[in-house]
Amino acid sequence: MPVGVVGTGGMGGMHARILHHKVAGARVAAVSDVDTERAGKVAEECGSAAIFADAGEMIRDDAVEAVVIASPDPTHAELTLECLRLGKPVLCEKPLATSPEEALGVVEAEVERGEKLVQVGFMRRYDPQHVDVRNTATSGDIGQPVLFKGWHRNAASPPGADSGWVVINSAIHDLDSARWMLDGEIEEVFVRGLDTTGSPDGEFDLQLIQFSVSGGRLGIIEVYVDAGYGYEVGVEVVGTRGTAYTAPPTGAVIRLERAYSQGVEDDWLERFEPAYTIQLQGWIEALNNGQLNGPDAWDGYAALVAAEACIASIRSGNPKTVSQPERPALYSREAPEVVR
Amino acid sequence: MPVGVVGTGGMGGMHARILHHKVAGARVAAVSDVDTERAGKVAEECGSAAIFADAGEMIRDDAVEAVVIASPDPTHAELTLECLRLGKPVLCEKPLATSPEEALGVVEAEVERGEKLVQVGFMRRYDPQHVDVRNTATSGDIGQPVLFKGWHRNAASPPGADSGWVVINSAIHDLDSARWMLDGEIEEVFVRGLDTTGSPDGEFDLQLIQFSVSGGRLGIIEVYVDAGYGYEVGVEVVGTRGTAYTAPPTGAVIRLERAYSQGVEDDWLERFEPAYTIQLQGWIEALNNGQLNGPDAWDGYAALVAAEACIASIRSGNPKTVSQPERPALYSREAPEVVR
Amino acid sequence: MPVGVVGTGGMGGMHARILHHKVAGARVAAVSDVDTERAGKVAEECGSAAIFADAGEMIRDDAVEAVVIASPDPTHAELTLECLRLGKPVLCEKPLATSPEEALGVVEAEVERGEKLVQVGFMRRYDPQHVDVRNTATSGDIGQPVLFKGWHRNAASPPGADSGWVVINSAIHDLDSARWMLDGEIEEVFVRGLDTTGSPDGEFDLQLIQFSVSGGRLGIIEVYVDAGYGYEVGVEVVGTRGTAYTAPPTGAVIRLERAYSQGVEDDWLERFEPAYTIQLQGWIEALNNGQLNGPDAWDGYAALVAAEACIASIRSGNPKTVSQPERPALYSREAPEVVR
Amino acid sequence: MPVGVVGTGGMGGMHARILHHKVAGARVAAVSDVDTERAGKVAEECGSAAIFADAGEMIRDDAVEAVVIASPDPTHAELTLECLRLGKPVLCEKPLATSPEEALGVVEAEVERGEKLVQVGFMRRYDPQHVDVRNTATSGDIGQPVLFKGWHRNAASPPGADSGWVVINSAIHDLDSARWMLDGEIEEVFVRGLDTTGSPDGEFDLQLIQFSVSGGRLGIIEVYVDAGYGYEVGVEVVGTRGTAYTAPPTGAVIRLERAYSQGVEDDWLERFEPAYTIQLQGWIEALNNGQLNGPDAWDGYAALVAAEACIASIRSGNPKTVSQPERPALYSREAPEVVR
Repeated sequence: MPVGVVGTGGMGGMHARILHHKVAGARVAAVSDVDTERAGKVAEECGSAAIFADAGEMIRDDAVEAVVIASPDPTHAELTLECLRLGKPVLCEKPLATSPEEALGVVEAEVERGEKLVQVGFMRRYDPQHVDVRNTATSGDIGQPVLFKGWHRNAASPPGADSGWVVINSAIHDLDSARWMLDGEIEEVFVRGLDTTGSPDGEFDLQLIQFSVSGGRLGIIEVYVDAGYGYEVGVEVVGTRGTAYTAPPTGAVIRLERAYSQGVEDDWLERFEPAYTIQLQGWIEALNNGQLNGPDAWDGYAALVAAEACIASIRSGNPKTVSQPERPALYSREAPEVVR
Repeated sequence: MPVGVVGTGGMGGMHARILHHKVAGARVAAVSDVDTERAGKVAEECGSAAIFADAGEMIRDDAVEAVVIASPDPTHAELTLECLRLGKPVLCEKPLATSPEEALGVVEAEVERGEKLVQVGFMRRYDPQHVDVRNTATSGDIGQPVLFKGWHRNAASPPGADSGWVVINSAIHDLDSARWMLDGEIEEVFVRGLDTTGSPDGEFDLQLIQFSVSGGRLGIIEVYVDAGYGYEVGVEVVGTRGTAYTAPPTGAVIRLERAYSQGVEDDWLERFEPAYTIQLQGWIEALNNGQLNGPDAWDGYAALVAAEACIASIRSGNPKTVSQPERPALYSREAPEVVR
Repeated sequence: MPVGVVGTGGMGGMHARILHHKVAGARVAAVSDVDTERAGKVAEECGSAAIFADAGEMIRDDAVEAVVIASPDPTHAELTLECLRLGKPVLCEKPLATSPEEALGVVEAEVERGEKLVQVGFMRRYDPQHVDVRNTATSGDIGQPVLFKGWHRNAASPPGADSGWVVINSAIHDLDSARWMLDGEIEEVFVRGLDTTGSPDGEFDLQLIQFSVSGGRLGIIEVYVDAGYGYEVGVEVVGTRGTAYTAPPTGAVIRLERAYSQGVEDDWLERFEPAYTIQLQGWIEALNNGQLNGPDAWDGYAALVAAEACIASIRSGNPKTVSQPERPALYSREAPEVVR
Repeated sequence: MPVGVVGTGGMGGMHARILHHKVAGARVAAVSDVDTERAGKVAEECGSAAIFADAGEMIRDDAVEAVVIASPDPTHAELTLECLRLGKPVLCEKPLATSPEEALGVVEAEVERGEKLVQVGFMRRYDPQHVDVRNTATSGDIGQPVLFKGWHRNAASPPGADSGWVVINSAIHDLDSARWMLDGEIEEVFVRGLDTTGSPDGEFDLQLIQFSVSGGRLGIIEVYVDAGYGYEVGVEVVGTRGTAYTAPPTGAVIRLERAYSQGVEDDWLERFEPAYTIQLQGWIEALNNGQLNGPDAWDGYAALVAAEACIASIRSGNPKTVSQPERPALYSREAPEVVR
């Protein structure tokens, strides 16, 4: 499958390298970036892929049959729509758009087309530890799942990260996890936040997102983008008979200087590299089978709707209802969602 | 130190037995219970203690120099006041009273007397794992503590346990832990609940208590009294450089039938038996030194004020402010709070 | 890289499927098996590979440029020699041969040819947890490595597994791990064994292999092929300042029925599937780069020499010296051994 | 129970303080030490105990009804014999003597007297984690116990510690654990050692002790007295259906600087302080009940016999048979051995 990769920064470069080195049945046919020098380096590393300065041009090129979008967030929706117009399958990094309205546009275009072509890069759904928790949760072994708990910590946030950025760029993963783990929609949110750096801007780098999920269930997410100690993500699903949560660190246990220790990763690229690989392998395999089954445009949209409600709750200081239209039939939940 | 124990049920019997078998420098001088047969058995087991049907009478007996109260909740405040009147030190099981007003009465009586005689049975403050987390939190090693996270699960709730009972009887421990771990007061609470048993009564056996703590900090408590799998309590303190949490199970690791496993306790008596022992040892030692230093009447009162706000939030569905008078000088935080 | 796979049973089928589905740059060109029906099924699953009844014929076929050998042990050395004669790179499942003498024949043939073409399937060297321990051991962080400890347990042994089989088929992995982790050769072994099934045959399904390693270091391996509870492998390297060992289970932590638990795998295919994949990816990438760097024929030979000494120790009840010729220059240790 | 404590150094001082502060029903009646100033400080701390320069004099004093021996090793046997002569119960620190012959003298004296008065300070038998492993091993849950694995590490050894010291002072605990966990006698030992400090004296600070246990079972002990990272003891019992081992560290889990960590203790006083307390509580309670049930003189003797064989194996480089007379009826295994 000849793939075109939009964006060759940290994320796009990683996707291209994984496709080239680790995914059977895929070929990096082209890469695009406004920074063509950067694009050139990635192209060379990935078997002499064609280089484009313009993403749209690359997407329209006949030699490209499937597209990975890893360019800046504001371009996601428009480029995804272009793929839809051309009938080319696309794996778009999260967020699918910068607002629920824009994401709904993608959903509507796909519904009109009548076939699923869009997958959203919620890669945690491919992390073996997350998969294991979800399989346990849906197996009935721990009874009915009634509560989702998530924590998500970054060592340090980039300059200019405000409360909204924390929700849209970080917590959106957790909101998707909650929907996925509980097989439900987020209905109401209440967010409290804290500025742990003591800056005067009133922006929250630590947020507690409490919410209800369809079926009368509950959830709580801690997002802390200046946690200092490293990058870490964990989830727990509490059921009526037991609970399941992602394992603690899995690296070598080291005894040294009066302590046992295990390493924690620096960032998501390091922590989730295997999940990104499994995501791409599964995507290519699904394309070859004609059975796309990962997180779809609706998942991208629903996460944004919940995110928008979180931001409204932060601003108002009150609980906020999440409202969204009915899920179109194209996105029904009958099909299995994950291939491991 | 000759001690009189009020109540000889599960809790009172345990206190008496620990005093007799495991605490140096203590003697069970008397026990009281309206069920004198039950009292008789405990008395016999504990070195032929005197038996009283009436708690007040026992408290007033000259042979009793210190009192442990483990009778039903509605009797706590009145019996504690009786000890105060007589100038006898008292270790009262939680809750200190059945309402903040009643607890405030105890606080005021103690303030008027001008010396601390009351300790409240928040035994988690003596659990080595909790102590270890708090010591880490207050050491500065993990930076400034900014977030408290607690979880508290019981295998099954007793018949008739309603939303209020869950707060007053279970969550009150967690509210105290939050105050203790963060050295602060709870300022606002927001509670969402869920009835996991599907009963029609609308009572919440699973509660998520979100709150703010003085100094602009945050907290989240999960209380689930029908968790099924066993009894478990855990806390995590998140700081600006790292986090600390209570260790996972510490019993033998067993490899059997395709799994590693470690046992979880049935209930709090099993889980916290060592903490109850350390609590009583420390109390007796403090009495002999004349330096009472455990959780005091103010801690008992403040936890009840927060609990009352939680119940109000459950009923209204909205955040609720916690309001309390200024902390009297008698309860200043200068003295060390825990002796290990 | 068009690969021919010899053997389409459990191991061979797995190798073929991984090559087809998960390895970039590889193609299953042919499979061979005396059971051509079985071979046919695997061929069909892997993109219509050619089918051979005779392994030698397949190896000699021009369409096959590299070979994976996963046929029964007695065929390994001869088929590997055939690959050497043709100058085709070969990944041979362990053991490389059924005796040290036979393995030495492979080493000598390769030395005569003057280039490394043989890799032996010690896949643990590609398991991320093992790699992590070795990296820690060689980093100097834990001081000088002085002791290797390994444990290796199977749920149940196959019928007819005698003491020698346990060494040659199971412990050989651990002997390789010890050599790899400590970068040294095994010099003397002492084995005690036990028949835990109470059979009258005197064969040991549990063995304790104690040994010395060049540089005056020590090692101890527990191999237990009827351990009942599941399949598990672990290693620890003890250094002069600290130790490092493979993490405990990494699956979801489940709280259920008065216990925490984590699953243990059934067998090596389940436990080491990711390692087999990384091994094949690395091998194909190394072939494309012209830089084979995995465990080589000398490693396959040295493990067999140590294994033979273990069997002699079992039979004699005494310590037994391991003797081997000098390591040929072709197998010098300068090159990096593992690509992650 | 008025107790006399022989020796007021690190160990003796600790025993006295625990008796005074934490053991119900005990009283430190007297302490003895050739260094009477040191004795004086401990006496003052423990309720004005009488002070003796001569241990024998103290033991013979009528005010002393039970004796704890924590003086230097060479005095243990003779002082224990003095207690036996007077019919006073004695808790003697390990080792019971400096040679098996000397220990056998104690056994014979006790057998002649016809009642058990001697307990040996193998305090690990009172460590809750060790007890948990043994209870699992003897419960049948993991099948028949067939293998004992122990590891025992000290941060650094004292000056002058030679191979024999390592066995007699450190490994003797592990030899006792093996006997206790498997309910059997050690029959043959084979020891390999290593000098990790590179000193020219040929003394082994790291030892691997492999052994067989009655009933055809096996064991392996790692003792490393210069392990650097801290003090740690662990055991595993492997059974025919599963295994059980002592839990990893139980202190707070700290996330900091790219790692999870848990503290490891400095030394045995810190690690086993609770076990020493439970040991003394159980001993005093047993004395009051007239039912001594801890590790006895036979256990002290049997451990020394095994230790002597270990030293002989180190010196000869060969396996060494452990030989001992039949266990006298006084030490039959019918009685329960541990009170928790």
